[in-house]
Amino acid sequence: MKIRAAVLEEFGQPLAIGEVELDGPGPGEVLVRLAACGVCHTDMYTASGADPSGYAPTVLGHEGAGVVEALGEGVSSLAVGDHVVTLFSPQCRECLHCRSDKTNLCLAIREQQNLGHLPDGTTRLHRGEERIRHFMGTSTFAEATVMPEIALAKIDPAAPLDVVCTLACGATTGIGAALYVAKVERGSTVAVFGAGLVGLGAVAGARLAGAERIICVDLDEGRLASAREHGATETFIGGEDAVERIVEMTGGFGADYTFEATGSVKVMRQAVESARMGWGLCTVAGVAGRGEVLEVIPRYLITGRRIAGASFGGAKGRDRVPELVDLYVKGDLDLEAFVTRRIALDEVNDAFAAMDRHEGVRTVITSF
Amino acid sequence: MKIRAAVLEEFGQPLAIGEVELDGPGPGEVLVRLAACGVCHTDMYTASGADPSGYAPTVLGHEGAGVVEALGEGVSSLAVGDHVVTLFSPQCRECLHCRSDKTNLCLAIREQQNLGHLPDGTTRLHRGEERIRHFMGTSTFAEATVMPEIALAKIDPAAPLDVVCTLACGATTGIGAALYVAKVERGSTVAVFGAGLVGLGAVAGARLAGAERIICVDLDEGRLASAREHGATETFIGGEDAVERIVEMTGGFGADYTFEATGSVKVMRQAVESARMGWGLCTVAGVAGRGEVLEVIPRYLITGRRIAGASFGGAKGRDRVPELVDLYVKGDLDLEAFVTRRIALDEVNDAFAAMDRHEGVRTVITSF
Repeated sequence: MKIRAAVLEEFGQPLAIGEVELDGPGPGEVLVRLAACGVCHTDMYTASGADPSGYAPTVLGHEGAGVVEALGEGVSSLAVGDHVVTLFSPQCRECLHCRSDKTNLCLAIREQQNLGHLPDGTTRLHRGEERIRHFMGTSTFAEATVMPEIALAKIDPAAPLDVVCTLACGATTGIGAALYVAKVERGSTVAVFGAGLVGLGAVAGARLAGAERIICVDLDEGRLASAREHGATETFIGGEDAVERIVEMTGGFGADYTFEATGSVKVMRQAVESARMGWGLCTVAGVAGRGEVLEVIPRYLITGRRIAGASFGGAKGRDRVPELVDLYVKGDLDLEAFVTRRIALDEVNDAFAAMDRHEGVRTVITSF
Repeated sequence: MKIRAAVLEEFGQPLAIGEVELDGPGPGEVLVRLAACGVCHTDMYTASGADPSGYAPTVLGHEGAGVVEALGEGVSSLAVGDHVVTLFSPQCRECLHCRSDKTNLCLAIREQQNLGHLPDGTTRLHRGEERIRHFMGTSTFAEATVMPEIALAKIDPAAPLDVVCTLACGATTGIGAALYVAKVERGSTVAVFGAGLVGLGAVAGARLAGAERIICVDLDEGRLASAREHGATETFIGGEDAVERIVEMTGGFGADYTFEATGSVKVMRQAVESARMGWGLCTVAGVAGRGEVLEVIPRYLITGRRIAGASFGGAKGRDRVPELVDLYVKGDLDLEAFVTRRIALDEVNDAFAAMDRHEGVRTVITSF
């Protein structure tokens, strides 16, 4: 079939919106008609050429939600008409990692996915003879995609897809950092650096976990207002003195849990240093630029701080995303406020530009 | 009373062995007659002047064991004749930290101890009018010392003091890193960087915890032989390729738990990078030099590695040290092999020189 898609033809150039061919699903694969797709920094980062593991041509997009349209041979966990959220981080439920409760990094299709292939080493996307690679195993800046069954989370069909698509990446990354990685304890004090979608997710996750104080730091007053709506109890504009301020606000100790959601290694260092002496845990959720290093003064470790990190908030997606959708449907999690703009696929390059200007929280493509 | 002691008169100069005056114990304090004291890198580090928080004149030494000789007013947990191990890391059992199971950093006397004072802000050590400070709250390079009751661990009198003094610092730091900080799980794979007393302690701790594989890395073949005696299953001489080798030895993944026991930030980085993708935990036990930073590539965190650290192996000393002494008495922990040389107090400067040449594991002063 022919589908409209946003193609990264060449690094550093605008995405080209046009037609590409999509083959039907092979064994273990599913054809999904997309209803919505969030526009994430990772898409822009890859488009810029800064990611050394990037490739082109490829259809970008990885924060998708849609409806199952056709099943490949042997697919048993999904049916036509099911509502799904796409998972760049799959969950096969069989590999060593999926059987462990310590990690969400499924090993089943990792190598082929990193190459831009579906698990069998080929692509369903092409233009005549030219193969087009599948970005992050998802390629959801498109009308439809073919993905492995193990990379789709079946969700409550009552949930609006243009809202829950945020759980395909950013929102789950933040919420999961608090709930599944740091495992924030009731009554604790939390500091979140960055109030983009990941940071706001961490604020919301900390609130769900019962944190007593949630301090949020960002460079923008508007984002801090959003953070307060999601549960932040104290907010301030970040700067060189952020560590000092958090230490002072916490009686000289630092926060029980800190979260870094900016991707800046300088801010990561602040998140480490504002974690509490004795037991403070800093969770890194942002993705740093190539070649950048986080500098840690070992004394901070020796006096009892810890540093953790995770991809996709440590969430095993097929299990966790449906649970988070249910929390949203029940009214316990305000995902709607994360979506600050809805656009057509043709406007995706504008969305990148707006992101670069730090406008809003999440732009979602709702028509293809 | 007059006691013989090794005094740091001036940074960078040999310690002066001579007489100083020691006042009797005040309220909550205990006079201990020392039977043995290990010579630790931290003593040498302070003597060199490299530690910015160091002070002089002071009586060095903090790895002591001895017998209670007199009690100050109100001391109830110890009796004259009790055998004790000295604790530079006290345990008051009442402060916020002592009541938490997450940290061993007792807050009760921290500030005064850091200044070289006993808890009441004065010293029992002096020379006429000149006050001499108490190093790390212990000052055990001496015939006797006065210490707070909360900084003494009462142990089984059957245990030889010239062996269990190693538990006052180095051995517990390593054993505790494995047992109390990392909480090594049965059947796991461990990598220990450094085979001095702390590293050998980590090897022994990992063995006690039931680790299946214990890989030890050091620059010296003799130390690696010691590591094998304490439970290392594989050893190799460290170098630039240490991470690569450990990753290769572990099927491309890295070790479940890694321990850094050298104080080198380069080695700390290797310990981080050889921890397992998904859930590897790197525990930093070594003390880095002033101004040095550990460089962490954030990708190692995002893919599931964690970094922790602790002082004194995370051990709450009055609870844990007696337990470790009991393990030794029962034959489950070979502390004797850690003591590779016994000397008189007068030879302490020679012991520093030998330590600088990386000779042996631990030198213990056994006559004052």
